[in-house]
Amino acid sequence: MRVAVVGAGALGLYYGALLQKSGVETHFLLRRDYDAVKRSGLQVYSINGDFSLPKVHAWRTPAEMGTADLVIVGLKTFANDRYQELIAPLLSADTVILTLQNGLGNEESLAELFGAERIIGGVAFLCSNRGEPGNIHHLGAGRIVLGEFVRRDAVQLERLAEMFCAAGVDCRTTADLKRARWEKLVWNIPFNGLSALLEQSVDRLLAVPATRELIRQIMLEVIIAGNGQGLNSAIPEKFADSMIEFTDNMGEYRPSMQIDREEGRALEIGSIFRIPLEAGAGKGVAMPRTGMLATLLEQTQTVQSA
Amino acid sequence: MRVAVVGAGALGLYYGALLQKSGVETHFLLRRDYDAVKRSGLQVYSINGDFSLPKVHAWRTPAEMGTADLVIVGLKTFANDRYQELIAPLLSADTVILTLQNGLGNEESLAELFGAERIIGGVAFLCSNRGEPGNIHHLGAGRIVLGEFVRRDAVQLERLAEMFCAAGVDCRTTADLKRARWEKLVWNIPFNGLSALLEQSVDRLLAVPATRELIRQIMLEVIIAGNGQGLNSAIPEKFADSMIEFTDNMGEYRPSMQIDREEGRALEIGSIFRIPLEAGAGKGVAMPRTGMLATLLEQTQTVQSA
Repeated sequence: MRVAVVGAGALGLYYGALLQKSGVETHFLLRRDYDAVKRSGLQVYSINGDFSLPKVHAWRTPAEMGTADLVIVGLKTFANDRYQELIAPLLSADTVILTLQNGLGNEESLAELFGAERIIGGVAFLCSNRGEPGNIHHLGAGRIVLGEFVRRDAVQLERLAEMFCAAGVDCRTTADLKRARWEKLVWNIPFNGLSALLEQSVDRLLAVPATRELIRQIMLEVIIAGNGQGLNSAIPEKFADSMIEFTDNMGEYRPSMQIDREEGRALEIGSIFRIPLEAGAGKGVAMPRTGMLATLLEQTQTVQSA
Repeated sequence: MRVAVVGAGALGLYYGALLQKSGVETHFLLRRDYDAVKRSGLQVYSINGDFSLPKVHAWRTPAEMGTADLVIVGLKTFANDRYQELIAPLLSADTVILTLQNGLGNEESLAELFGAERIIGGVAFLCSNRGEPGNIHHLGAGRIVLGEFVRRDAVQLERLAEMFCAAGVDCRTTADLKRARWEKLVWNIPFNGLSALLEQSVDRLLAVPATRELIRQIMLEVIIAGNGQGLNSAIPEKFADSMIEFTDNMGEYRPSMQIDREEGRALEIGSIFRIPLEAGAGKGVAMPRTGMLATLLEQTQTVQSA
C-alpha cells in the first residue's frame, strides 16, 4: 500500500505519521513544513505517547510523488479548487481517494473530478494542532469513521479501516456516511464557528451558561437539518448533550477555524456552514442561529475599505 | 429654567451645549472632561455648524450643583445603579427628570427611586462621539422624541419640547413613549450589537448583502416583540427598511456600543438587549437572533481564566 497525503496540516500529518510508523509507505506533499521535515523528519507529541520519524518521504509537488494506492486528502476546504492540480497526478486507475476534510461537499466535488466509485469519506474526531514546522501536537481524540460515497465494495472499506486500526487509530466503518458527516457538523458548526468568531477556546465558551445554551440550540438546528436529509436513522436530540460533555473534556482546545482566523487564513465557511445551510433550507428547516453565525464569520473576513 | 446634565458623554454634552447656547442656564456634572471644560469650555463640531462655549458651569459632584428644574440623564445604562447618588442631590419637589438613555428600564428605575410623575423619557436619534476632553463631534441626526412615563401634564411636556426646539433640536412629543422606545431599539439592537461584536462601523455592515439581511431579520424580531407590548399603534414592518435607509446615510458611523467596546468600557447589554428580550419572551415572541447577539456580546466581556 502506497499512501499519499495531500494537505498535510495538523490532521494529514498526524494520521500520515501514524500510518508510516505502522509500516505503511507514506508520502507527504508539503509546503510550509517541507524544509524542516526533509531535514529532521516528523515529531509527534501525542497524548498516546510521543514519537519521531527521522526519515519521511517529503515532496514539494504531486508530480514528484508518483501514483499512490490511496490518496488521503487533508486540505482546508477553501483550497478545494486545487483538487485537480494536487490530486490528478497521483491517480492510477485503481487509486482510492479518502477525504478527511471538514463539512459537506468534498466527496461530491472529488467524485465529479475523479469518479464517484473511488471516493471514500472519513469523518475524523481529532484534536490536533501544528507546532513548529515538522511538529504535530495531538491533544485529544482521533477516531475516524469511514464510509463509501457510493456503496460498492464493503471489503475494500473494511481493509482501509483495518489499516488505520493497525496504525493505532480508532477506526470504524459506516454504511451511512451522510449521517456521520452531519454528526460531525453538530460539533463543528457551533464550536468552530463560535471559537473563531469570538477568538475563544472551547472551555471559555462552555464556562458561561448562556453560551453553553446557545451551543446547544445551534446543535439542535443542525440535528434537525441533518435528520431532514434522509439519514438511515435519525440523530437523537441527546446527541447534542453528549457532544457538549465530550467537549467539556477537551480543556482549552482551540478549534481549527479559530486558529485559521488567528493566523489570518481563510475560514472553511462554505463546507462547514453554507452547504449545510443550503441542505437545511432545501428541506424547509429554519436554522436562524446557524445562518447568523455563518454571516458573522463571513463579515469578519471583509476588508475595511478606504 | 435651571438644567443639570448628569452623565455628560457625547449625548449629554451635545444637547446641554445646545441648551446653553440658546440661553438656558445649564450645569454639567463632569468627570473625564472636567479639567478641560473648566479651563476652556466646550467645543462642538457639528454638521449644523461648529460653535464654542468658553464659559461653562462645570461640576465634579452633584452636591455642588444644587437643585435644578430639569435633570437630563445621559448616563450609560450600566451605571444606573448610581442614579440615587448622582441625581438625588439635584432634586427639589418640582424637579423633572428627563432620561435620554438607551433601551428599556430607565424610566422604571428612576420612577421607583424618585416618583413616576416627574419622569419623562426622551428617545434621541443622534450620531455623536466625544473627541478630546471638552470636544464633541456631532456627525448626524439629533432628533428627540419626548414622552411622559405616566401621562399627567401634556402642557409641561410641550414646554420641554419647545425648549429643545428653541435650542435648534428637532424635538417632538409622543403620547406613546413605549412605542418610541421600541422604535429606537429597532435601530439599537442590530447596529449597536453587530458593530460592537464585529468592531465594524455601520457602513461596513450594510455593504454586505448577507449582513444587511441579518440586520433586517433582527429588526423584524424587535418589531414583532415591540408590537406584542400593547402599543397604541403597531410599528409596521417597513419601518425596518426605513431605518436601514436612514443608516445608509450615516457613512462610517461607529455606534456608541462599538466605541464602548473598543475603549474597554462595559456594554449597555441590559437595557438594549436583556430587558427587551424579557419583554419579548413575556409575550411569547421568539427572538433567536437578538438573543444570540446578546449572548455573543456578553461573551466578549468574559475574562480569560488562568
